[in-house]
Amino acid sequence: MDYQGIIDAIHHEITPELDIGRVASYIPELACVSPRQFAMAVRTMDGETFTTGQADTKFSIQSISKLFSLTLAMQLEGERLWRRTGREPSGNPFNSLVQLERERGIPRNPFINAGALVVTDVILSHLHDARATVLDFVRALAGNPGIEFDLAVAESERSTGHRNAAMAHFLKSFGNLHNDPARVLDAYFHHCAIAMSCVDLASACAFLANDGRLPGTGEAVVSHSQAKFINSIMLTCGTYDAAGDFAYRVGLPGKSGVGGGIVCTMPRHFSVCVWSPGLDGSGNSHAGMLALERFTTRSGISIF
Amino acid sequence: MDYQGIIDAIHHEITPELDIGRVASYIPELACVSPRQFAMAVRTMDGETFTTGQADTKFSIQSISKLFSLTLAMQLEGERLWRRTGREPSGNPFNSLVQLERERGIPRNPFINAGALVVTDVILSHLHDARATVLDFVRALAGNPGIEFDLAVAESERSTGHRNAAMAHFLKSFGNLHNDPARVLDAYFHHCAIAMSCVDLASACAFLANDGRLPGTGEAVVSHSQAKFINSIMLTCGTYDAAGDFAYRVGLPGKSGVGGGIVCTMPRHFSVCVWSPGLDGSGNSHAGMLALERFTTRSGISIF
Amino acid sequence: MDYQGIIDAIHHEITPELDIGRVASYIPELACVSPRQFAMAVRTMDGETFTTGQADTKFSIQSISKLFSLTLAMQLEGERLWRRTGREPSGNPFNSLVQLERERGIPRNPFINAGALVVTDVILSHLHDARATVLDFVRALAGNPGIEFDLAVAESERSTGHRNAAMAHFLKSFGNLHNDPARVLDAYFHHCAIAMSCVDLASACAFLANDGRLPGTGEAVVSHSQAKFINSIMLTCGTYDAAGDFAYRVGLPGKSGVGGGIVCTMPRHFSVCVWSPGLDGSGNSHAGMLALERFTTRSGISIF
Amino acid sequence: MDYQGIIDAIHHEITPELDIGRVASYIPELACVSPRQFAMAVRTMDGETFTTGQADTKFSIQSISKLFSLTLAMQLEGERLWRRTGREPSGNPFNSLVQLERERGIPRNPFINAGALVVTDVILSHLHDARATVLDFVRALAGNPGIEFDLAVAESERSTGHRNAAMAHFLKSFGNLHNDPARVLDAYFHHCAIAMSCVDLASACAFLANDGRLPGTGEAVVSHSQAKFINSIMLTCGTYDAAGDFAYRVGLPGKSGVGGGIVCTMPRHFSVCVWSPGLDGSGNSHAGMLALERFTTRSGISIF
Repeated sequence: MDYQGIIDAIHHEITPELDIGRVASYIPELACVSPRQFAMAVRTMDGETFTTGQADTKFSIQSISKLFSLTLAMQLEGERLWRRTGREPSGNPFNSLVQLERERGIPRNPFINAGALVVTDVILSHLHDARATVLDFVRALAGNPGIEFDLAVAESERSTGHRNAAMAHFLKSFGNLHNDPARVLDAYFHHCAIAMSCVDLASACAFLANDGRLPGTGEAVVSHSQAKFINSIMLTCGTYDAAGDFAYRVGLPGKSGVGGGIVCTMPRHFSVCVWSPGLDGSGNSHAGMLALERFTTRSGISIF
Repeated sequence: MDYQGIIDAIHHEITPELDIGRVASYIPELACVSPRQFAMAVRTMDGETFTTGQADTKFSIQSISKLFSLTLAMQLEGERLWRRTGREPSGNPFNSLVQLERERGIPRNPFINAGALVVTDVILSHLHDARATVLDFVRALAGNPGIEFDLAVAESERSTGHRNAAMAHFLKSFGNLHNDPARVLDAYFHHCAIAMSCVDLASACAFLANDGRLPGTGEAVVSHSQAKFINSIMLTCGTYDAAGDFAYRVGLPGKSGVGGGIVCTMPRHFSVCVWSPGLDGSGNSHAGMLALERFTTRSGISIF
Repeated sequence: MDYQGIIDAIHHEITPELDIGRVASYIPELACVSPRQFAMAVRTMDGETFTTGQADTKFSIQSISKLFSLTLAMQLEGERLWRRTGREPSGNPFNSLVQLERERGIPRNPFINAGALVVTDVILSHLHDARATVLDFVRALAGNPGIEFDLAVAESERSTGHRNAAMAHFLKSFGNLHNDPARVLDAYFHHCAIAMSCVDLASACAFLANDGRLPGTGEAVVSHSQAKFINSIMLTCGTYDAAGDFAYRVGLPGKSGVGGGIVCTMPRHFSVCVWSPGLDGSGNSHAGMLALERFTTRSGISIF
Repeated sequence: MDYQGIIDAIHHEITPELDIGRVASYIPELACVSPRQFAMAVRTMDGETFTTGQADTKFSIQSISKLFSLTLAMQLEGERLWRRTGREPSGNPFNSLVQLERERGIPRNPFINAGALVVTDVILSHLHDARATVLDFVRALAGNPGIEFDLAVAESERSTGHRNAAMAHFLKSFGNLHNDPARVLDAYFHHCAIAMSCVDLASACAFLANDGRLPGTGEAVVSHSQAKFINSIMLTCGTYDAAGDFAYRVGLPGKSGVGGGIVCTMPRHFSVCVWSPGLDGSGNSHAGMLALERFTTRSGISIF
């Protein structure tokens, strides 16, 4: 498969679309990012990496961090994790409190904000320093010790994150947060503020396309079953309230963030990361969605 | 009208009902109160007071405090207050976040918890010390400088009030809380923890049955229109999700609290307070509701 | 009290407001009515009637008919009626199916459409011809045998009333409709299509201000308690999702219809009907609301 | 792959589980079916069929019919279909009216009842006899002209289907049903009442695992893209409110019915149908879910 040819062609075609989306504005630090940026990185199971655009430029991974927190929590808790969060699509915006009230404090899935707060709480209950633990985990997965928090973004989220604070206290009121809400929020905001490049993210997700093992060393990050499970959750819940549209158009398990990044996995074939800061109405990268849609069409590879 | 005869007869009849309700359990300090207590106090516009039962025993006024906060906020803000809270019945439990999400941060009325937090925020924006201001206001209305906070109750509410904390942060996320959520919550919890007797409360509400003026001195607390308005809000929104049932059975403007107290006003006739700690399924005093229902039936006086 | 002077002055003041509201458009036949019309009729308990404007012009009473159906159903069923409908304000639009789903087929109150369909079903279960029975009942209350259905309006409602049909089938699915949905809808649409004047309506509601008795003959329509109950339901639920605003501004039990009519009762004093077809955002007559607000302000008479 | 060995082993293991689920009771005719029945049929892309249990016993396909209606509507309407229904998971029960109200008459996806009614309406607008058309289409896909409606089931659904009738009228009120609700419902109830065996269903779905072509003749039923799309919708929306759980446990696109049948597709490998009438709390076959879970575990084949 000529991955390099495919992504170069996509980059060329996508360039006129870079003006269309809107950069996330609810976090002041993210609102400053220029929208006319695009990058893509493909990591195959035999160790090759193909890139186009600014594939080494770091951006705020935001909700993509939920993928790494979930993986870590599954390592720590196993199946017991599903006592504290569901794994069903939500049918509601990612930051809605309505469903949480209806379902008495059990988030629908670990990728809506409420679910990610519970996942963070689980990590905190096991490990003293949840901030550093997740950062170290991501560094190891990506094979890049230079990955850092963007502290300005973390502070920006903290000072404006009243809805997340509301959610943490709401979870606490249902008994589904065991630690102090302020500590959970601090860790959560830092995880969202990790800065990574497309190359970093394609590498960090490669184990999900490799039955749970790091492609280089073969070391198991999670079991084969768990990798399968995480892929299935990405497919049904990974792209906010557009999971059905994403499955329909792209046809790969994926996880997006409002920083404009999207990662996808194609089991036994590759992991891929695309980045462009302009978002569509669902909060996913506009150009990123288009690029992934063309990628599965041109390569003829999708899970369906 | 033989008010004394009426309330004595009611006290006698109601005694077997004192075992039926359940004392509020969500605040640990309230759960310790013995349910077999009953008191009633009627204050007429010509200055007489009639009592039965433990009418001088102090209890936690809880949501009845919302009546005093609202009165104070109407003094301070006038009609502008309705830009920040509605005045419609909610059709949802008093502490629901659903409606707040649907109506983008504008509480349905000042008597649900979200509305009371906004009212408290308004008072805080005008006055440095919202805790002391409301306490002093209540003391003046009741003519009893000995009224105090029950600090154990206030602390109990603070440490378990995660849902109220969620609501404060949620309001903040919609821009409808101008002060620090922690300060608003501290003031709110203290207002709920004021301890008063039936005699205190019947006196403190008498101005609402007297066109806004203190019955003794004739001093205006609020304008005639504002008194009419507060009575109307009590009738449509004063008893949680049972306002229709209350209007149907009692037929007076009323405001209840989970401490087991209920105050009512009958314009141009009297104010009345009843207290019994056992609650019905809607969070209103079980024996208190029955006593008020019999009171309007026996006296033949209601607004309808 | 100079009722004639008061309503003449209100008519004069209100005239510039007649252009502001919007005539109901969801029923084609109602959309043809000219908005620049206004009438008011006051009926006192000692038998006098005061009018201004086109007080003998007939208009479509629409939801005001729910008041008469409810009265009839209370005669027929008594307290058992409350097993099939609540009596709480809804906090949702009058034709919402959401609350019905949440509360498993029990409408919040008899004045939202779902509740009125249940009330109509109750009447149908007792009486063969629910259409004629309600019409005859209204004629007797108003003392006017010339009151008729507007058949063009009834047909217009039937052919466009898909949401009401949805509601009837939904109630049936919960077992809270005992008759064929088509028959219930036919009766309901005809009740809404009764045409009456302000004079007719003020007369027909007078028993509610007279402890349940017809003012002329003293004949009991309902018991004293039931009259009190109906007034309380009007106050808390009578004006769609604006009951709190209505209580606040007008301070009387009232029931409105999208034909532009509003009736109110002031127990022991008067009944009043106002009509102007232009509606405000809540579906109540814009000029009618203003006229009633001024009426209670100028007369100094309200239940609060 | 030893499919025969795998399904025989599963049949053996699953037998003790046949007592656990509960047969659907909301349609009287379905309530009579004995729960202790089990069958499974696998159809590979090279034309082989493997079966275990009562694989030729016909059962009511119920919601599995939505898969065939959708396929037909995609043939007839193409991409325009998505103007009238979404393709997102619902996060609500399959027969909820709440979401329909919030989203103003656009069903979340074609597999909830509201969406299937819209799909049926689309077919009716193109073809005079929607009942016969769908039946003929299913016969052709399955290669079995002996497939018939179970008329007793269709009549049973019609006479008890008040909630579906409510939904049809509700869709009509939003303008998203173009034909008479009664005709749409009649066609819909008949589609649900088609009776097929596991062998029939595995054959009828084989085109979805074969890039849209019938495995025998190679004839295109839908385009390759459309087949991919239908698989993606099955995965995200095919099993009521348990799509996430199904993806997690089974890892294949699937569509279930309350008759106890579930069909799944594994692109480029096989289609499979399992049947057992006892249902779990989500309305999916209890033993069927377990059997499919073991099938992907034992075969090591899933899309993830």
